Amino acid sequence: MICLGFYLKLMIFATWPGDHTLKISPPVCSMDMAEAELLGEKMIVKDEAEASQIHNKGYFGTPLSGGALELELIEGIFLSESGKVDVRRKGKKMAFPELLKAANRIYPNFEIKYLVYRDLRLRGYVVKSCLAPLDFRVFPRGGSPNKTPSKYWVSALSERSVFDLKALRMHLAKVLVVKKKLLIAVVDEESDLTYYEARTVKPKGQIKKKGKKMLAHAMFLEDRVMVADKSEALKLHESGFYGKMIGSRLQLSLIETAYLMEKGIIEVKNANTGRKIGLDSFMKKAKKIQPDFNLRLKVFKDLEERGLIVKTGFKYGSHFRAYTNAPDKTHAKYLVHSFSSDHRGMWPEVSRAVRVSHGVKKDILFGMAGNKIEYVALRRVRP
Amino acid sequence: MICLGFYLKLMIFATWPGDHTLKISPPVCSMDMAEAELLGEKMIVKDEAEASQIHNKGYFGTPLSGGALELELIEGIFLSESGKVDVRRKGKKMAFPELLKAANRIYPNFEIKYLVYRDLRLRGYVVKSCLAPLDFRVFPRGGSPNKTPSKYWVSALSERSVFDLKALRMHLAKVLVVKKKLLIAVVDEESDLTYYEARTVKPKGQIKKKGKKMLAHAMFLEDRVMVADKSEALKLHESGFYGKMIGSRLQLSLIETAYLMEKGIIEVKNANTGRKIGLDSFMKKAKKIQPDFNLRLKVFKDLEERGLIVKTGFKYGSHFRAYTNAPDKTHAKYLVHSFSSDHRGMWPEVSRAVRVSHGVKKDILFGMAGNKIEYVALRRVRP
Repeated sequence: MICLGFYLKLMIFATWPGDHTLKISPPVCSMDMAEAELLGEKMIVKDEAEASQIHNKGYFGTPLSGGALELELIEGIFLSESGKVDVRRKGKKMAFPELLKAANRIYPNFEIKYLVYRDLRLRGYVVKSCLAPLDFRVFPRGGSPNKTPSKYWVSALSERSVFDLKALRMHLAKVLVVKKKLLIAVVDEESDLTYYEARTVKPKGQIKKKGKKMLAHAMFLEDRVMVADKSEALKLHESGFYGKMIGSRLQLSLIETAYLMEKGIIEVKNANTGRKIGLDSFMKKAKKIQPDFNLRLKVFKDLEERGLIVKTGFKYGSHFRAYTNAPDKTHAKYLVHSFSSDHRGMWPEVSRAVRVSHGVKKDILFGMAGNKIEYVALRRVRP
Repeated sequence: MICLGFYLKLMIFATWPGDHTLKISPPVCSMDMAEAELLGEKMIVKDEAEASQIHNKGYFGTPLSGGALELELIEGIFLSESGKVDVRRKGKKMAFPELLKAANRIYPNFEIKYLVYRDLRLRGYVVKSCLAPLDFRVFPRGGSPNKTPSKYWVSALSERSVFDLKALRMHLAKVLVVKKKLLIAVVDEESDLTYYEARTVKPKGQIKKKGKKMLAHAMFLEDRVMVADKSEALKLHESGFYGKMIGSRLQLSLIETAYLMEKGIIEVKNANTGRKIGLDSFMKKAKKIQPDFNLRLKVFKDLEERGLIVKTGFKYGSHFRAYTNAPDKTHAKYLVHSFSSDHRGMWPEVSRAVRVSHGVKKDILFGMAGNKIEYVALRRVRP
């Protein structure tokens, strides 16, 4: 077939006034433009030579018996935008914007999926669609469906969609079975893309917590807890890096206090009345100060029991920072945020948390408290 | 008076078994320990020589006629913790933890204020109390109340207290009048301190926006807007760096679209029906997608009119990033978050936003939309 675009361009230059010779650009179509017929949600390239050329260069579509090629809508639209396919419906030519509109009518969020598909294709990857609810399979560079397994499974989202932990866990379970990596592509307001690699993590630390005997008496002051006796303070602090020494006293966080009370390691008294406070009563007070106290405590406990040292992550805007070894010897490896396992949040918040963790060279973990505690790490990547 | 602590220590060593000569530490009191009487919310140092010594070394307290010194509770407690003052109430000695408890009964959040006071004093600053609702005045290093004006006015807060924009604006108005800097000291769960310097900012950019004539036709697709005609797309994009070119089409954000519609620079049609969309109807749709759309638009408009180029801040977890010059020539100078002027939020969120902005070397601005738009910048500092 003839390459219309190229001929049109030549005609324009031919009738252009002035010195047009300088302006002659290379032809827009280095290959012949194939013709595809839009049939509902598919496109068919009937010409056998065109079909095989399209398929062989980029593994677009599925070859049909008889030599034709069936393209998915998203493939056809990409090939149309790239000037490689000329799409017609009932013989009438459809321009690229018209195609986009049509696809948007058929698929919810088509524009988002398309932007991700397009970006990955332009980065040189072979991209094929994937079983729902995931969107795409991406093959390693130089790979293809016939010779290599896919590397990433991709979920394409708008920055405005919900950050849904339950869905994320389901995606992770899926990719784990097939041994793929999970890539989450988030499209922002300006159609710019951010890729996150998500993976399940089992954090592990090297700190063996010593014993369980009663070590210190503490007093509860408004929203903080303090061990006033210097020798008790030091003993407790050294037993597991709990609290922070301020002069000769030890300040404990509410979380540490609840954890140590539960273990029978400290005894807490009300600073004003001098009366002993039980764990239940302390938990109630703590919950008033910090509504998500229970949730945080679950994650804190789990991390402590995995041999990590857990400290507040306030400076990083997260719940905790966690050390795999003694805090005076190493930097914290993780920032940890506690969520319920069915948490639904906002992507910009996630984006910010990941950005902070990169800035301080730590891994961000989302600790999800359900029947057990699971951890997901998110990392920005450039595929 | 005699220095009890020192004598006690010597006595202990004298009766200690084994080789105690190695353990002799310097005396705990290099100056004589002054005696102070706790009277309600004040302490009085009666001995004239002690009073003047305490006052002259650190400008503690207010000298009374007759040679005595009146200490504020916080000053007396700090001097007690430092081993410089021996506090008694009705003749009975009060230890430091007992004093803390007493102060906590009198003042709400005394512990928080004390941690900040203590930290600033230990950093070598002369610190005096300040008119409420601010907490302290801090004098420049080497300065003092008699010879130098104070440098910072300080608000001491718990990480758990509300981030209250209205209060912050009031603080800023106060320090502006007296030409001080505003320091916000936030005490975290572990009694660790983070200092933020807050200041009012009037951002200004160098971009002169051209004309107001109609430039492009756009279509509205689910949650994004696109100009399909290449020449219109380029013209619009170049007129003020609006949107992002994706291939030959221009993607506009919802905010840009509303702004450009209001200026009469673009006309928007529904991609499915082809019908023209009016500004009101567009605003309604946008608000559905982004509940705080109105708020963001106000701040966007103000920044654009100040000659800045405003783009999404998704990657940084903030609403916008803003350039003072062409985005292809400079990096964005600001990250901007829009708030209503009476916004009440959480400190950990603020902490995270500031942390991100430092990581990417931009200033974080909180754009507060009230009758007019005002901007506050927060910066972490080490005083």
